[in-house]
Amino acid sequence: MKKAVILLSGGLDSATVLAIAKNEGYECYTISFDYGQRHRAELDASKQLSTAFGAEVHKVINIDLTSIGGSALTDKTIAVPESHEEGIPITYVPARNTVFLSIALGWAEVLGAEAIFVGVNSVDYSGYPDCRPEYIAAFETMANLATKTGVEGNKLRIETPLIDLSKQAIIEKGMDLGVDYGLTVSCYQADEHGQACGECDSCRFRREGFKQANISDPTRYRF
Amino acid sequence: MKKAVILLSGGLDSATVLAIAKNEGYECYTISFDYGQRHRAELDASKQLSTAFGAEVHKVINIDLTSIGGSALTDKTIAVPESHEEGIPITYVPARNTVFLSIALGWAEVLGAEAIFVGVNSVDYSGYPDCRPEYIAAFETMANLATKTGVEGNKLRIETPLIDLSKQAIIEKGMDLGVDYGLTVSCYQADEHGQACGECDSCRFRREGFKQANISDPTRYRF
Repeated sequence: MKKAVILLSGGLDSATVLAIAKNEGYECYTISFDYGQRHRAELDASKQLSTAFGAEVHKVINIDLTSIGGSALTDKTIAVPESHEEGIPITYVPARNTVFLSIALGWAEVLGAEAIFVGVNSVDYSGYPDCRPEYIAAFETMANLATKTGVEGNKLRIETPLIDLSKQAIIEKGMDLGVDYGLTVSCYQADEHGQACGECDSCRFRREGFKQANISDPTRYRF
Repeated sequence: MKKAVILLSGGLDSATVLAIAKNEGYECYTISFDYGQRHRAELDASKQLSTAFGAEVHKVINIDLTSIGGSALTDKTIAVPESHEEGIPITYVPARNTVFLSIALGWAEVLGAEAIFVGVNSVDYSGYPDCRPEYIAAFETMANLATKTGVEGNKLRIETPLIDLSKQAIIEKGMDLGVDYGLTVSCYQADEHGQACGECDSCRFRREGFKQANISDPTRYRF
């Protein structure tokens, strides 16, 4: 059976990606990262989602990105903004997707997986450079030069099924595939119960998505 | 002053790279990885080398690659071979250089560094795919698409000053720049005192290098 590694953050996007990979017939291996993020409730959400979709293994990797800092998500002295910024926002975590994809690449090689699925999105995305199609293409090229698998001619694909979808379209697709969005946590500053602030970029994109899809928003807000 | 992040494993190659970066006038930020490797003595060696060359900061990142495994260096059930293998050897750690360079990339962005130095070598190298020039070039391209710095037009370079040097030439260069190779640990299965086995690929390449350079070998062997 064909295998895939799925980057699972516990948010709306990655939950949808897991559902898509499962629906495409992959044996799914989910991976989450405990990197010192503010919104640790997403780690519990990831575990529940992995179980709900019958993934083979759920792996949690500890990698302390707070020792590098440089982002509102990994440096507690930098506040999460509640209004949209121009340009690349302060919630951007330097090289985060590259670090996560690289560790997933190592696991994919050991498993003999043929794809890594990641929920990056360049439409509703918050201006993060490492969510753009040209970045993903460059990572895939690099990945196939980095590994024994690549040298031996077994090409690994980086699959980004959400790359050009609106939040509305992502939610509609996930609903079709049976995603329980009540399990997911998107908020950059969710509390320990997974309750959302309703104010950060991530909350606003998500709320707008449910509204546009005309679907009742299952998000648990703090207010 | 121009800044660089230096990947410092504590071995002969990375010690030489640190000396080269320093000699080129960089303010040096050294980074080592506690990844569950057999040869943990290299972590002490890294710290000593960083101090010896007056690096600004020495950072040790914990990233447990034993949970992925797939290599004699990260899976204790796989023995380190004592004769040279054909092809890519079992000491190859899946995606290791990619993981290390990615974390260094995040730090380089936060620091505003203009280069990452890494001691990969494609001459005496042990058949590792992630030591080849084409891999390094692909990583550099990807890195400049991944980051805010890259988007803003500040190109980061991946510097590989040893890429086409023989072990002999590396040692000669390092001696000119004042590297104390007695501080370095190259052995894949060095003991806790940093004493080398003398039998693994890494020991053999190193010993041969000192012999060809006609320099007394300062390596501390177990026998």
